[in-house]
Amino acid sequence: MTRENLAECILSIPDFPKKGVEFFDITPLMANPEAYKFTISKMSELISPTNPTKIAAAESRGFFFGPALALSMGLPFIPVRKKGKLPRATIDVDYELEYGTSTLCVHKDDIGPQDRLVILDDILATGGTAEAMCKIAESAGAKVACCAFFMEIDFLKGRKRLEGRTVVSMFVK
Amino acid sequence: MTRENLAECILSIPDFPKKGVEFFDITPLMANPEAYKFTISKMSELISPTNPTKIAAAESRGFFFGPALALSMGLPFIPVRKKGKLPRATIDVDYELEYGTSTLCVHKDDIGPQDRLVILDDILATGGTAEAMCKIAESAGAKVACCAFFMEIDFLKGRKRLEGRTVVSMFVK
Repeated sequence: MTRENLAECILSIPDFPKKGVEFFDITPLMANPEAYKFTISKMSELISPTNPTKIAAAESRGFFFGPALALSMGLPFIPVRKKGKLPRATIDVDYELEYGTSTLCVHKDDIGPQDRLVILDDILATGGTAEAMCKIAESAGAKVACCAFFMEIDFLKGRKRLEGRTVVSMFVK
Repeated sequence: MTRENLAECILSIPDFPKKGVEFFDITPLMANPEAYKFTISKMSELISPTNPTKIAAAESRGFFFGPALALSMGLPFIPVRKKGKLPRATIDVDYELEYGTSTLCVHKDDIGPQDRLVILDDILATGGTAEAMCKIAESAGAKVACCAFFMEIDFLKGRKRLEGRTVVSMFVK
């Protein structure tokens, strides 16, 4: 298994969820235990040097990687969820998606100035979701240890939107 | 760490998401690496004797456990998602929730007659979600190896709704 082999676990779907958008379907990765194990192991290696104290990921596809990475690295996992899903006091931030707008929320008592967060998502596209998560972390006084992604879509320039923060990804398309 | 210790990782939230519903917040479990590691290890032990070939879990909170358990057990993970989220041909089933109705979908090519599925979710309440997932599996000709939950709310009698299937849970409330 190499990083290049992972290309076989990513399907390109044209015009989903709407015309003109190319969607990358990573469910074949989840269905391939060897490729998924390799991914979690290599992502841990990429993230570890940034000395994180917690891993935060957004629903739903961020949860494909967040809890497993947290287990593998022995770190707390902090879910970032859409409005109305977390039952206690939250920090909220509105943000733009590649297709639409939304609000992300984190439980207030999950993040503080003592934390160095991994901001994790499956795919770095335009960077809107990751930037919103960075804003939540930074508004709570936490540091962003790194932004980490399984896959990065180079031409959408999400990395530029995250400028000034460490960005790591397994696979660039 | 014992199963009983896990009670400290579950918060009871009255009247969420609406009046009269008691919501169990398991985000403290996710934020506690020792408790989460113990949970994944013990759930693997409960599930393993049922000889599964794949693990299926529903978004979003099912993803708190599904990918990490799949990693831990070396099994494929099959995401069960809400309508409009999976980009290829799906099997769909409508179902009732404790509060509302919804549709669950699985990629058609992810499940077949050769499979013995773990039907996984965070909490067994009325059993609506798990029953819907069993129906998807069984309509594809697959066997349900077991229905597995982190937590089971006894008085809602979800186990009765899943009668005839093996049900395992870490923690009964």
